[in-house]
Amino acid sequence: MKARVTVTLKNGVLDPQGKAIEGALKSLGVEGIDGVRQGKVFDIELGTTDKAKAEAALKAACEKLLANTVIENYNVAIESGH
Amino acid sequence: MKARVTVTLKNGVLDPQGKAIEGALKSLGVEGIDGVRQGKVFDIELGTTDKAKAEAALKAACEKLLANTVIENYNVAIESGH
Repeated sequence: MKARVTVTLKNGVLDPQGKAIEGALKSLGVEGIDGVRQGKVFDIELGTTDKAKAEAALKAACEKLLANTVIENYNVAIESGH
Repeated sequence: MKARVTVTLKNGVLDPQGKAIEGALKSLGVEGIDGVRQGKVFDIELGTTDKAKAEAALKAACEKLLANTVIENYNVAIESGH
């Protein structure tokens, strides 16, 4: 079973990395970009085929390690095909 | 108009960061995780409402800055709601 976890900064949290990317894109001549916010994505391979177990493991992984829930949101998407 | 760009490592490219996360999750007692690969996500705000222009700007941004196309794949998803 496969899952994708996406971790993004909460609204209102400053994102200097995103600002730097925005500036770099302007310098490179890419027009029409008004804002960039960077996040992280984790493609996770799970050993179980039990969806409830998979969800529990992914929630634990996010809360304990993948996301800093003070400043970040996370979203878990389990791929249905597997 | 908003878009999300997801940049992931190509298959076969080593991902030591993903391996480290996998090891850390095991140490933390999170069971059932067989593999982790980390990627990046960019939430981009575009000034234009023209979808073709937006796609062209995003492609340029990916090719020039956001993705290293030798080792990374990128995926562009334009949000339809805006």
